[in-house]
Amino acid sequence: MAAALRDDLPEAGGPWAPTPPYSFVGGHNDGDSIPVAGLAEAAISALRREGPALASYNLGGSPQGYEPLRRFVCDKLGARASTPVDPDEVLITSGSLQALDLVNEAFLRPGDTVIVEQATYGGALTRLDRLGVSWVGVELDDDGIVPDDLDRVLTGLAADGVRPRFLYTIPTVQNPTGSVLPLERRRRILDLVRAHGVPVFEDDCYADLVWRGQRPPTLRSLDDGRGQVVYCGSFSKSIAPSLRVGYLVADPPVIRQLLAIKTDAGTGALEQLALADYAPTSFEHHVDQLMGSLQVKCAAMRAAVAAHFPDDVHVTDPAGGIYVWLTFPEGVDTSALVEPAAEAGIEFNPGAGWSADPQWGRRRLRLCFGHPDVATIEAGVARLGEVYRASIA
Amino acid sequence: MAAALRDDLPEAGGPWAPTPPYSFVGGHNDGDSIPVAGLAEAAISALRREGPALASYNLGGSPQGYEPLRRFVCDKLGARASTPVDPDEVLITSGSLQALDLVNEAFLRPGDTVIVEQATYGGALTRLDRLGVSWVGVELDDDGIVPDDLDRVLTGLAADGVRPRFLYTIPTVQNPTGSVLPLERRRRILDLVRAHGVPVFEDDCYADLVWRGQRPPTLRSLDDGRGQVVYCGSFSKSIAPSLRVGYLVADPPVIRQLLAIKTDAGTGALEQLALADYAPTSFEHHVDQLMGSLQVKCAAMRAAVAAHFPDDVHVTDPAGGIYVWLTFPEGVDTSALVEPAAEAGIEFNPGAGWSADPQWGRRRLRLCFGHPDVATIEAGVARLGEVYRASIA
Repeated sequence: MAAALRDDLPEAGGPWAPTPPYSFVGGHNDGDSIPVAGLAEAAISALRREGPALASYNLGGSPQGYEPLRRFVCDKLGARASTPVDPDEVLITSGSLQALDLVNEAFLRPGDTVIVEQATYGGALTRLDRLGVSWVGVELDDDGIVPDDLDRVLTGLAADGVRPRFLYTIPTVQNPTGSVLPLERRRRILDLVRAHGVPVFEDDCYADLVWRGQRPPTLRSLDDGRGQVVYCGSFSKSIAPSLRVGYLVADPPVIRQLLAIKTDAGTGALEQLALADYAPTSFEHHVDQLMGSLQVKCAAMRAAVAAHFPDDVHVTDPAGGIYVWLTFPEGVDTSALVEPAAEAGIEFNPGAGWSADPQWGRRRLRLCFGHPDVATIEAGVARLGEVYRASIA
Repeated sequence: MAAALRDDLPEAGGPWAPTPPYSFVGGHNDGDSIPVAGLAEAAISALRREGPALASYNLGGSPQGYEPLRRFVCDKLGARASTPVDPDEVLITSGSLQALDLVNEAFLRPGDTVIVEQATYGGALTRLDRLGVSWVGVELDDDGIVPDDLDRVLTGLAADGVRPRFLYTIPTVQNPTGSVLPLERRRRILDLVRAHGVPVFEDDCYADLVWRGQRPPTLRSLDDGRGQVVYCGSFSKSIAPSLRVGYLVADPPVIRQLLAIKTDAGTGALEQLALADYAPTSFEHHVDQLMGSLQVKCAAMRAAVAAHFPDDVHVTDPAGGIYVWLTFPEGVDTSALVEPAAEAGIEFNPGAGWSADPQWGRRRLRLCFGHPDVATIEAGVARLGEVYRASIA
């Protein structure tokens, strides 16, 4: 049977292996912070109220998702990101990964080009790659996209007769750099893409976890109803990644077009119900608590990097989220560390996979501090420092 | 922004409209039968036990799905369908629709051909259509696939140099005809496809709802480990369609290849947890109760068809499930009834969309009795009878 499969599929992995002792990969979150009791109560009360509706797809309602949850998404974006949204503009998705897939499918054909950030979410790049879509990277600094470089990229593509299908950006708590794009840059970037007629796909998955400075308004809100921006968010980072609930925000005609390709008979109702009951009363408080714990772990990780790596290894100071991004001196290839790190019980994301230009990314790597506790962070980073020092000895 | 979308997407629908009073479409189920209290208890106890694991994708376990749920799938298939399965052969999916998408993606390229049943699940056909895949229908009688016709189709395709990528079949409680393929036919069909080297995609989504006769072993089990069959099932029809939990059963190398294209970061954990806690103690009893209620509604619907339609309209007597399939005299086009039925507050599935050959299907239609209560069934079918009589008057 395996012989009857297509021969151009992505390579299959081996059997599943348990997580190693020092796991710094993935978007996992803080286990102690999961609001277990609150979610359980919410699930019960929602089931008591809506239980028989489970007998119908989409709980008998709109395929855009459970309306109370869409209303909460609107309230949250209004209160936390100065972004007025109507429930008709919201499509609940099975995690933000389904949001990515829907937007990619709706906008992209093989041979198309998109603009991405120089360092970006690796899963977005592997998706583009599978779709046969090329990308061009735009420079980042400590504040996110450098507008002049975006101008250069847009102008260069136009000169080459290439019309990028969209700019994919993570402006607020950038993955992996943790930067937050300032308001003025947001306006400038919107001016630039508008001048070139290029839509924006704004991925705001980490944006509820900003712990330094003010969270600026979303690009979608600054676009002022011009419809240039499709926006996505998620409850994975704020509540729990194992719950598969994300959301897209776009103009209703775009939402209806995305719905026509969302042929999954709806996103899981129990997870929507539980979140819709939990979030309105508890989201703010929960996220505040979670950020307190993440900040402690972030500080521990940064301190451990400073203590156990040479001074010429740079670590970011993220404004929020769950990642730090390390930059090594010229000549280092972090992919070469994967195997010795694995032998020491450590996993991390080498930078090449998180970079528009793998060559640029090879001396970088990403560490997630969301899941491990402080002791594990300290021990694991110390070990990773040993692995690195041994590699350059 | 809508202007930047691909121009070859499936047509977008209009704004969502609430369900009409007499809705006989879709795979909705009996609202009174949803085991609300049991699911709520299960959700709480599972959350209490596994709550912190929600902080990791896939609950920190295998991406094949929550292991206790995979074990239940194995136990259920062993006990109810004489099908020994190992948890390593099971992949939990976000509903059986994701199972369909994964199998299609893994086996099919544009231009390929598959074999389907003459009357089959409409959603499978629209998926094939979007993928640019052709199909050839094989004849059904009251017992399901007619083996001699399958032989004819396989031989004809081979003579034309066409190698079908798989046979897609719903052998147990066929959708829409409600037949159950007898054991001897199962063996014969396996012999035929093996002789032609054609894999089988066995869709068993309704198979837990057989209320007449014995449920035969699955094609997968009769294949005796030869690996010719990929199998899928679902909890949508047995527990609740709004929960998006289905499963694939295949040889581990095929499962690992499917996993490589299941890039959704896992199926919703809360729904898996709740089912895994609920099902081992309560599934059997629940399904027995549910079938009692479905049988009553099925009888009511068949009696209403007999009472309100002319004698030359044939209605199936399904062995289980939630559908009846009506066949009208030559010359009738059930698509023409959609609009007058809608004006009378009725929705149904015209047969063309559920048929390999739309021309063959145009004098057929599908009615679902899963969701409406007996009074609604009686009133709605009476009205539909009026609509039909008016159309031929």
